[in-house]
Amino acid sequence: MTFWNSLSKEQLKELYSSTLKEYEACKGKGLKLDMSRGKPGSDQLDLSNDMLSMSLDTFKCDGVETRNYGVLEGLESCRELFAQILGVQADQVFIGGNASLNLMYDVIAKAYTHGLKNSPAPWAKLDKVKFLCPVPGYDRHFTISSTFGMEMINIPMTEDGPDMDRVEEAVKDPLVKGIWCVPKFSNPQGIVYSGATIERMAALKPAAPDFTIMWDNAYVVHEFEGEFVPLPDIVSACAKAGNPDMVYEFASTSKITFPGAGVGAFASSVGNIEYMKKLISAQTIGYDKINQYRHVRYFGNLDGILEHMRKHAKIMRPKFDIVIKYLDERVAPFGIASYHCPKGGYFVSLETMPGCAKRTHALAKDAGVTLTGAGATYPNGKDPLDSNLRIAPSFPPVQELEMAMDVLCTCVKMASLEKLINE
Amino acid sequence: MTFWNSLSKEQLKELYSSTLKEYEACKGKGLKLDMSRGKPGSDQLDLSNDMLSMSLDTFKCDGVETRNYGVLEGLESCRELFAQILGVQADQVFIGGNASLNLMYDVIAKAYTHGLKNSPAPWAKLDKVKFLCPVPGYDRHFTISSTFGMEMINIPMTEDGPDMDRVEEAVKDPLVKGIWCVPKFSNPQGIVYSGATIERMAALKPAAPDFTIMWDNAYVVHEFEGEFVPLPDIVSACAKAGNPDMVYEFASTSKITFPGAGVGAFASSVGNIEYMKKLISAQTIGYDKINQYRHVRYFGNLDGILEHMRKHAKIMRPKFDIVIKYLDERVAPFGIASYHCPKGGYFVSLETMPGCAKRTHALAKDAGVTLTGAGATYPNGKDPLDSNLRIAPSFPPVQELEMAMDVLCTCVKMASLEKLINE
Repeated sequence: MTFWNSLSKEQLKELYSSTLKEYEACKGKGLKLDMSRGKPGSDQLDLSNDMLSMSLDTFKCDGVETRNYGVLEGLESCRELFAQILGVQADQVFIGGNASLNLMYDVIAKAYTHGLKNSPAPWAKLDKVKFLCPVPGYDRHFTISSTFGMEMINIPMTEDGPDMDRVEEAVKDPLVKGIWCVPKFSNPQGIVYSGATIERMAALKPAAPDFTIMWDNAYVVHEFEGEFVPLPDIVSACAKAGNPDMVYEFASTSKITFPGAGVGAFASSVGNIEYMKKLISAQTIGYDKINQYRHVRYFGNLDGILEHMRKHAKIMRPKFDIVIKYLDERVAPFGIASYHCPKGGYFVSLETMPGCAKRTHALAKDAGVTLTGAGATYPNGKDPLDSNLRIAPSFPPVQELEMAMDVLCTCVKMASLEKLINE
Repeated sequence: MTFWNSLSKEQLKELYSSTLKEYEACKGKGLKLDMSRGKPGSDQLDLSNDMLSMSLDTFKCDGVETRNYGVLEGLESCRELFAQILGVQADQVFIGGNASLNLMYDVIAKAYTHGLKNSPAPWAKLDKVKFLCPVPGYDRHFTISSTFGMEMINIPMTEDGPDMDRVEEAVKDPLVKGIWCVPKFSNPQGIVYSGATIERMAALKPAAPDFTIMWDNAYVVHEFEGEFVPLPDIVSACAKAGNPDMVYEFASTSKITFPGAGVGAFASSVGNIEYMKKLISAQTIGYDKINQYRHVRYFGNLDGILEHMRKHAKIMRPKFDIVIKYLDERVAPFGIASYHCPKGGYFVSLETMPGCAKRTHALAKDAGVTLTGAGATYPNGKDPLDSNLRIAPSFPPVQELEMAMDVLCTCVKMASLEKLINE
C-alpha cells in the first residue's frame, strides 16, 4: 500500500469515486449506531445485578445504622475499600454520592465560593482564573472550567502524560490555579502517565499557593488487557514533595458497578479532607450509606474489585480489538490517521489529517453513526487542528460495533480524500 | 396550681430545693438519651426494608435503562410521583440525589456562582446579600445562608406562618434576595402556613428581581394526626400572581423511606427547571435512577405514599402524645413555658421563660439528655430571648422518651426557678 499523500490527483480522484460508492452503500443501510459516550454495555451492567438484590442483614456496617442520617465522610469500610483501590490511607478518603464528577464540580465550586484550604481568596473574587488542560482530554472537565468562566490553557499530551516542561513553565503564572488529569488510560488516548511524569507533577512549585491537581483516576482498575498495574499514589507523592494539599484524586464505581448508581469518592491530604468536610457539612447531612454498604458487602476488598474487573475486561477487550482491527486494516495503511492501542479505559483516540475531524464526524452522522462531537476533546470545543475524534466502543454490541467501525473507516477515507484532492 | 411568677421568694426557694432533689435523682440514673435531631426511629426505617430487596425486573422504567448514564432531570415516573406529592405538574419537577438539603445548597451556590434565572449578576459579585429567616426555624437552612456569608434577618413566626407584614416590608430592600420557609409542620413549631399567608407570599413584589422563596416542604405528607391535607401549590400560586420564577419548592423521601438513601427533588417553573438543568449539566451526568425506580415501583403513586405514611403516623403519634402529656402535666400548670401541639412533622418547639433555654439545655445535658443546642433555631445560633428549645421525639424508643421528657421537665423547672429566684 502507498500512503495517500504520495498519490497523484488522478489517483486520488479514482479512489474518491470508489470510496464514495462504499459510503453511499453505508448510508443505504439506514443504520442508527452510537459510539459517542463511554457508557458500559448492558452485559456489563448485568455483571453487578446481584448487588441490588442481596440481603443487607441488619443494615449495620462498622456499627453504624446505614439507613439513617449521619457519617458525612462515609462508612469506614467504604473509605477503606477506596483506600485500597487508590493506594492511599482510609483517613485520606471522603465518600460522596453517585458521581465523582459531582465531587470534582463541588471542589471547584467551593474554590469559587469559599476558596480552597490554601487560597488567599475565593476564586470568585479574582478577575481571572486559568486552568491547565492536557489535550486531547475529557470534555466534562473542560465544561466544569467553562461554566465557571476559567481561561483554559492547552497542554499537549505526550506518550508519558502531559508535557511537563510546558506544565512547569505554565505554573509560574499565579493565575494558573490547577490542572485536569486522567492519569491512567487517559480520556481519550488511553495513555498511562509515567512514573517520571507523576513525580514531576507532585513536585511542581506553582506560584499560586492553592494550585490544585484535579487527578481524575476514573479508570484506576479498568485494565482490559493484562493484570492490574497500580499507579504511584499521587497523594503521598505530593506530600513527599512538600505539597501535601496540592491534589484531589477522584474515583468511582460508575464503570465498576452502575453508572449513576455507583459510589464516588475523593482522596486528598487529611488537612484537605477536614477542610472540605467542614464546607460540605453545610451542603448535606450525608450521602447514600446504604449504597456504600452494598458496595462494601459485594466486593469486600480490592481483590473482589479486581476479580469483578476481569469480567468487564472479557467484554471490553473484544470490542477494542474490533476498533483496532478496523483501523489497522482500513485506515493505517494509507497514512491518513493515527491512534493509540490502549490497554484499559473506555476510548480510542483517532488523529485524522488536520482539518478532517469535523468532516468525518458529519459524514458518519449522515450515515447513522454518532461519534463524540469533533472538538469535544478540546477546551471550548475548539480543536486547533480539527483532527481529533474520540471513539467509544463500549456501548454498542459487537455486531453493531463492527458496522459502526466499517462506516467510520469509510468516512475517514472520504474526508481525507476530499482534503488531499482540494489541497 | 398557681403560676410560679406569682409566688414569693420563699415559696420559690422551697420549690427549688424539692426540684433540685428531683434533678439529682435524674442525674443519678446515668442516662444517655438523645432528642437532638429529627431522625426516624429504627421501627420507622423497618417500614421500608422491602424496598431494598424487591426485584426490579428489567431495570427499565418508562423505556429508560435505569442502570446506565443519562436522564439528568430524573425518571419521568419519578417526576410524576413527586408532582402528585407536591400538587404540581411533572414537567415542573427535577429529581436530584439523596438529599433535598443538597438541592437547596446547590440552588443557593449557583445563585452565587452563576446567578439565578432573573439575576442581574451572580450574588458573589454583590457586596451584601440579605435573606429572610422566619424564627424559630431550621438550623441547616441558616447554616447554608451562613456559609455563603449572608446577612440573616429574623422574621417572627405567627400561628399562620411568617409575619407577612414584616416580610412585605423587608422585600422592599433590593439586597433581600430570598426567604427560607417550611410551610407545613414548620421546623420546629409544627405550624402550617395558612392559605392567606401562602397567597401573600406568592404575591410579594420584591425589589430584587431574583428574590427567591426557598419553600422546603420537608413534611408535605407527614401528618401523624388526621388525614393528609394538601397545602395550596406554591408554584402555581406564584405563577398566578405574576411571579412564575420566584419559588423553588423542595421535598424528599428522607423521612418516608430512608434518611440518606431516599430521593430528593425540587419543583419550580418550567423556566427555572430548564435554567437549572443547564447549569447542573456541568455538575453531573445524572442522579441515582435505580433508587428513583425503587421508589416508583414501591409506592406507585400518591396513594401508595399516603398509605405508607399512615404506618409512620402510628409510630410517631404516641411519641408526640408523650411529649405533650409531660409538658401538659409537668410544665404548663406553672406558667413557665409554652409550646404548640403539632399534627405532623418531627418537632415540638418549647418556649421557656426568657433566658432559660441555654440553662435548661445545660442541665439536661448534665443529666444525660441531649437536646438540639439552645439557639440553634435562630440564625447564627443567637436566640435573642434565649427561650427556644427544639424537642425531637422521633428517635428514642417510647420508654427512653418518657425518661427523657421526665428529665427535660425537671430541667425546665430548675432553670425557671433559678431565674425567678434571682430576679
